[in-house]
Amino acid sequence: MADPRFFQRHGPFTLGDLAKIGEAVLQSPESGSKEIRDIGTLTDSGEDQISFLDNRKYVSAFSQTEAGACVVAPRDVEKAPADCRLLVSDAPYRSFALIVQAFYPLPATVPGIHPSAVIADSAKLGDGICVDAGAVIGEGASVGARTHIGANAVLGTGITIGADGRVGANSTLECCDVGERVQIHPGARIGTRGFGFAMDPRGHVELPQLGRVVIGNDVEIGANSTIDRGMGPDTVIGDGTKIDNLVQIGHNVRLGKHCVLAGQTGIAGSAVLEDFVICAAKVGVAGHLTIGAGTRIAAMSGVTKSVPAGSTFAGVPAGEHRNWLRKNALLNRMVKEQE
Amino acid sequence: MADPRFFQRHGPFTLGDLAKIGEAVLQSPESGSKEIRDIGTLTDSGEDQISFLDNRKYVSAFSQTEAGACVVAPRDVEKAPADCRLLVSDAPYRSFALIVQAFYPLPATVPGIHPSAVIADSAKLGDGICVDAGAVIGEGASVGARTHIGANAVLGTGITIGADGRVGANSTLECCDVGERVQIHPGARIGTRGFGFAMDPRGHVELPQLGRVVIGNDVEIGANSTIDRGMGPDTVIGDGTKIDNLVQIGHNVRLGKHCVLAGQTGIAGSAVLEDFVICAAKVGVAGHLTIGAGTRIAAMSGVTKSVPAGSTFAGVPAGEHRNWLRKNALLNRMVKEQE
Amino acid sequence: MADPRFFQRHGPFTLGDLAKIGEAVLQSPESGSKEIRDIGTLTDSGEDQISFLDNRKYVSAFSQTEAGACVVAPRDVEKAPADCRLLVSDAPYRSFALIVQAFYPLPATVPGIHPSAVIADSAKLGDGICVDAGAVIGEGASVGARTHIGANAVLGTGITIGADGRVGANSTLECCDVGERVQIHPGARIGTRGFGFAMDPRGHVELPQLGRVVIGNDVEIGANSTIDRGMGPDTVIGDGTKIDNLVQIGHNVRLGKHCVLAGQTGIAGSAVLEDFVICAAKVGVAGHLTIGAGTRIAAMSGVTKSVPAGSTFAGVPAGEHRNWLRKNALLNRMVKEQE
Repeated sequence: MADPRFFQRHGPFTLGDLAKIGEAVLQSPESGSKEIRDIGTLTDSGEDQISFLDNRKYVSAFSQTEAGACVVAPRDVEKAPADCRLLVSDAPYRSFALIVQAFYPLPATVPGIHPSAVIADSAKLGDGICVDAGAVIGEGASVGARTHIGANAVLGTGITIGADGRVGANSTLECCDVGERVQIHPGARIGTRGFGFAMDPRGHVELPQLGRVVIGNDVEIGANSTIDRGMGPDTVIGDGTKIDNLVQIGHNVRLGKHCVLAGQTGIAGSAVLEDFVICAAKVGVAGHLTIGAGTRIAAMSGVTKSVPAGSTFAGVPAGEHRNWLRKNALLNRMVKEQE
Repeated sequence: MADPRFFQRHGPFTLGDLAKIGEAVLQSPESGSKEIRDIGTLTDSGEDQISFLDNRKYVSAFSQTEAGACVVAPRDVEKAPADCRLLVSDAPYRSFALIVQAFYPLPATVPGIHPSAVIADSAKLGDGICVDAGAVIGEGASVGARTHIGANAVLGTGITIGADGRVGANSTLECCDVGERVQIHPGARIGTRGFGFAMDPRGHVELPQLGRVVIGNDVEIGANSTIDRGMGPDTVIGDGTKIDNLVQIGHNVRLGKHCVLAGQTGIAGSAVLEDFVICAAKVGVAGHLTIGAGTRIAAMSGVTKSVPAGSTFAGVPAGEHRNWLRKNALLNRMVKEQE
Repeated sequence: MADPRFFQRHGPFTLGDLAKIGEAVLQSPESGSKEIRDIGTLTDSGEDQISFLDNRKYVSAFSQTEAGACVVAPRDVEKAPADCRLLVSDAPYRSFALIVQAFYPLPATVPGIHPSAVIADSAKLGDGICVDAGAVIGEGASVGARTHIGANAVLGTGITIGADGRVGANSTLECCDVGERVQIHPGARIGTRGFGFAMDPRGHVELPQLGRVVIGNDVEIGANSTIDRGMGPDTVIGDGTKIDNLVQIGHNVRLGKHCVLAGQTGIAGSAVLEDFVICAAKVGVAGHLTIGAGTRIAAMSGVTKSVPAGSTFAGVPAGEHRNWLRKNALLNRMVKEQE
């Protein structure tokens, strides 16, 4: 049960409603009127809750669940307990996520501007925005409708952010144009100066960084992550890309659509990640590389060369994941033989 | 000498007082009335200062110290200069730390709420708290007695923090319950949204994160570290655990009591660290693992499997530290042979 | 073209002016009166723009450039198109950076203190400073002339920062003395408590951290980076050193002059980096080591022993870069042979 201090439950919903919301199919049309009050896990749910089976490790828990309803893939329908109502989906986790969003939507923005917020006269404010205490919005900045600006966040001169966004407390946006439905978590730094110098024995000479950060729609940027603006070209984050906490994105980087970058990953300047690239935690990608679409990079890998689309890479320097496994096995064997 | 702009010295103390404070034994009871005015190092201390010997690398400095008094282990008593008064302790570094705390305690909280702080009417404020300029405390939040909220920190709706805490400037607390005597350093982000999605070719679907962060007593959380709230269960940080700067703790992680996580470490979702686990700097722990009690993990290691209690692990993927040393030695030998 | 919402172009300048600014030599003195309006790349520049050639990969683009002028090294002068005016420099990238700074200088500080800033009566404020909304300046703190304090930044009691500095929005300075012309980017944490404890089975005992952070002139500190104050000695950052985003500097560390630390690097307590050390991204340096002057450390390396001056190191544990290459080649060969 989600703590009501922090999360407000909506509903109840009928199972018929939830089938539509979750883009799933009711196994028995007559169960469509069954009322569901909450989501839950396979093991703790009761008659008025809905759960799901995705990872087949949990098939036996599924077979014994007392949940009133479950989302399940077609192949697992027959494992269900007799009295459990089923929503059948080819992507049960996705369907369940959509259902959880229905029960626990992001809280609607409550329009209002706190009197302690500091907003430049020339800022353009969309309808229904909320600006929390101490937030600062600079000259000419533009905030889209229903966007929520958290407490003590700072939006610099001229930046734009689209509708239905969420800017976390204590975050900073400079030199950027941000799309719609973007979530920026607390402490993120967007549009900061890229790390560009002419290195020189007389002292390094700063190269002004004259680009922006351009962020698409439906992007998420984690807490305390940093995205530097471009040096001349822009730094670009594609639609639907999800960035975890403490991630560093260097100047001129271009992330495609629907990439996923896990915590503490770093992408060096001018690297290109095509669509649907996944970086597990603490990955490093060197500058000026191209990582092909759909590539998956294992945690703590360091990528030093461009990677063809669809690869699975691991290691430092990163190579094909299967070669990395072989190297590890070989070394382990050799060490054992020496004992 | 600590800079008096930043640190206020208390005292003087008699050596008898310091023996009690440091849980140590006066070697010569008659030295109990000796007055000590400050702490210092073995090489820079004078007659009215106290120093310590812990690391035996410094035995010769100890033998020549001019400090008026020293904390020392029983085995090293005989190395002391003739005129140095001794406090004997089985844990000299610990005893010394307690003594330093007496001379330089955390500054007492000066009660008061800055007029520019923004505090919701429904917030519950303990006696003697201090709220600095620009801090924001949300609806229903609760702050324990004598807790200090730093400038421009943001405490979200409904959070709780116990007595004698310190919340650093520009930090953010959301969806969390925090114990007593907890230090949260500037820029830390507690209770942010965990990184949970149903990944999908149509676009990743966010899974609402409905848990909290629950932090025990006597915990320390470093500057700009991030602790995500749980997905449904809570993220839990055990009593006495110390977390350094720029550390990432994923959703549902459970850290035991008295763990130590050095800078830039990352613990992925749903991992469990039992009591007294030590992660050196930049360690990565993969999701859903259990690290047994008392395990020590070397800097920059990547742990990919559960680890038995009491292990010493190193490498990526991490294994027994002695095997890691062997692998490195073997590789070095082989490279040499090829020259 | 830099976006005028974010960057104001100065100029135009004559090529004679730019030669002086860039410390370069006009190839044809008669071109000194040519007027230049902007900078640009080799491929997108027109008759009134100046570009440069540094990396010889771009020689063919240089040979076809339509830029009105170019900065170029003596060896490449002959590759220039006939009608391109040349500024000849032994360090073309440096010369160009100086020229870009002339066209796009850091915006001058507009003097003024926002009414929502909170400044202690005993703070010492230099002439022409700018303090943005919500910034907090503590008792006895001192801010040098023309220094800009960003919105919601927090400067603690007694800290000092010299003239012509820039303190980013939402950053925090405590227990530190900062030189002139220092740029601190948003969310940086300077002077936070070092990670010092006496570890103990009864619970770790905090050792008060009684030193400062001392930062030289012309230093840059990246967004969300953290620099802990010393334990007793100070943490020291030498003149001209450049620190990227999300970098961690432990207590008592001493960085020399003109070091460069790329993103997500971490330097553990009491390590010493001599002058002109370069750490690429995600480097880790263990505590109490000395890295000799001019050493270069490859990305993602973990340095576990002191390093002689002028080295190029790589790997975990780090060794000579050429040995690291050999180890990788050897392992790759062995794995192939096994197939």
